[in-house]
Amino acid sequence: MTAAYVPALGPAEEIRVGELPVPVPHPDEVLVTVESVAVDRVDTLVRSGAYRTEVPLPLILGRDLVGTVLEVGHAVHGFRPGDRVWSNSLGHDGRQGSFAQYAVVPAERLYHLPDHVDPRLAVAVAHSAATAYLAWFVHAKLRPAQTVLVGGGGGNVGTSAIELAARAGATVIATARPDDHERCTAAGAAAVLDYRAPDLAMAIRTHAPKGVDVVWDTSGHQPHEISAEVVRPGGKILVTAVRDGSGPVPLAELYTRDVSIHGFVISLASVRDLTSAAALINRMLLEERLSARIIDELPLAFAADAHRQMEAGDLRGRLLLHPWAREGEEVWTGRPS
Amino acid sequence: MTAAYVPALGPAEEIRVGELPVPVPHPDEVLVTVESVAVDRVDTLVRSGAYRTEVPLPLILGRDLVGTVLEVGHAVHGFRPGDRVWSNSLGHDGRQGSFAQYAVVPAERLYHLPDHVDPRLAVAVAHSAATAYLAWFVHAKLRPAQTVLVGGGGGNVGTSAIELAARAGATVIATARPDDHERCTAAGAAAVLDYRAPDLAMAIRTHAPKGVDVVWDTSGHQPHEISAEVVRPGGKILVTAVRDGSGPVPLAELYTRDVSIHGFVISLASVRDLTSAAALINRMLLEERLSARIIDELPLAFAADAHRQMEAGDLRGRLLLHPWAREGEEVWTGRPS
Repeated sequence: MTAAYVPALGPAEEIRVGELPVPVPHPDEVLVTVESVAVDRVDTLVRSGAYRTEVPLPLILGRDLVGTVLEVGHAVHGFRPGDRVWSNSLGHDGRQGSFAQYAVVPAERLYHLPDHVDPRLAVAVAHSAATAYLAWFVHAKLRPAQTVLVGGGGGNVGTSAIELAARAGATVIATARPDDHERCTAAGAAAVLDYRAPDLAMAIRTHAPKGVDVVWDTSGHQPHEISAEVVRPGGKILVTAVRDGSGPVPLAELYTRDVSIHGFVISLASVRDLTSAAALINRMLLEERLSARIIDELPLAFAADAHRQMEAGDLRGRLLLHPWAREGEEVWTGRPS
Repeated sequence: MTAAYVPALGPAEEIRVGELPVPVPHPDEVLVTVESVAVDRVDTLVRSGAYRTEVPLPLILGRDLVGTVLEVGHAVHGFRPGDRVWSNSLGHDGRQGSFAQYAVVPAERLYHLPDHVDPRLAVAVAHSAATAYLAWFVHAKLRPAQTVLVGGGGGNVGTSAIELAARAGATVIATARPDDHERCTAAGAAAVLDYRAPDLAMAIRTHAPKGVDVVWDTSGHQPHEISAEVVRPGGKILVTAVRDGSGPVPLAELYTRDVSIHGFVISLASVRDLTSAAALINRMLLEERLSARIIDELPLAFAADAHRQMEAGDLRGRLLLHPWAREGEEVWTGRPS
């Protein structure tokens, strides 16, 4: 089968697209014919070694897939050949990745794709919406009628974050660049602010006079000082990215106000929590309450380019790859043969 | 009555010891004849204005007291004149302080002193042990058989932290200066390390090979890097003080390992949590499982000196003041007349 892989962890230049053997499922695994995969930032962190996790070598890239069941291990219940499925937990913690024509998925990490749902949308939100689920319901324990701040509301994770919080009955304040404001409003934000506004903290507080219950800057760029200024006493700050510009953590201002900081990565989520996330994602896909900005769809041969663009910060939205598309067939919306 | 107070928030020099009217209890309050009070670091932070909280002016200093009920408001149940009592939540959030011959205490913030318990010990641990209760059981949700690290195990809060965690069935690793090691062991620490050991993180890990479930540096001086190195994935770091030497928070190392940081102050604790803390404290006082290093006992006239010494970092233990002791009567163990 054709797969995008690295012989050893390293830079994007190490990515090869070539033939590898079709994997054989263990008794508790499912062999899936892969229709589409999504390029995640976390894929690049695993590939480079920046995020440390056990991986087989050569490592097939990729975490997410949507496809069709081809074969099930004899201990698997609930899946049959021909079932439409998706997953979001390959390519780390000892598991091979998804960027291939076939992939083996532990049955407990595979979910049915509901009928009439666009598989491209499903794979595009698989990572972002699951991350948002973990953030709000596992780590922040969000309750209805709370107010949250989503930094980077125009990003993949940011938009899912708005959608899940709004559906849970929270009031969402988002920050984004101006050309993403409409997108944030459509996702369910009650207020959207320019993330470069001169007095952003004060602007946020006009929408949350008692302070924000949960602050989640999905971009990682928002200064921690702003989070500290807007979070209410006893509130929570979620951390899933740390990047330039976020500055020092004003710990003294936070502890004296009973604020807790909850960092997490989807890679450490339990099977149970991921399964609960998938149930909500499937329901929201059916409700048409999840959205994605799919910026391009390309054959697997573009995997290295995709990682380079991701690492250069040039991707504003979700890039999909189609393992069965031929080179030159740059936009491809069919199903695998 | 004689009281130690400040006319307005400011430096220790503003502290006066003089006559103020005896307060009158509201229907839900109790008038207590104060036998002894403890000097807390947080008292200095309220007095200086560094910790912002609503206070009446002139502000009588002090948070903790032990004494005897003199009079009860008509809506109060459960207390009668002559009852021996203690409290640990005066002097902030609109309430007057305890450094006086009489104090009014909301009945919901007053606790019975068990028979045969040394009142000096009770007032000496009232703040520290309640802080430890909040840390382990409200914020960290400590479970039996977990391993905790207590930084500054020889301090007031540190020793209570060891005692409460050990009694809850946790394994306690403590750091302290060498002359406090015996004290930490007596409090229940399974291992005690010199906080200046050259490779402290590695030494801690030899006692907790899988990492520490909850890290609490009660001193505020321990580098956050050490906490990050020893905490297990998914573990918790408690923050109740931030002082010189603790350095930046290595947030990227923490979020990628699902570590959360829980900051809190006792001043924001709920009445319900403080009541639960008091129940445990009373039980542990009866069990003789709480200890305090009472370094001196002085008349109220020494209040300003006490605050100056506290702010200079010169107090290694608990200083008690006795509002009914006369000047010159520097060690006083009797009861109020």
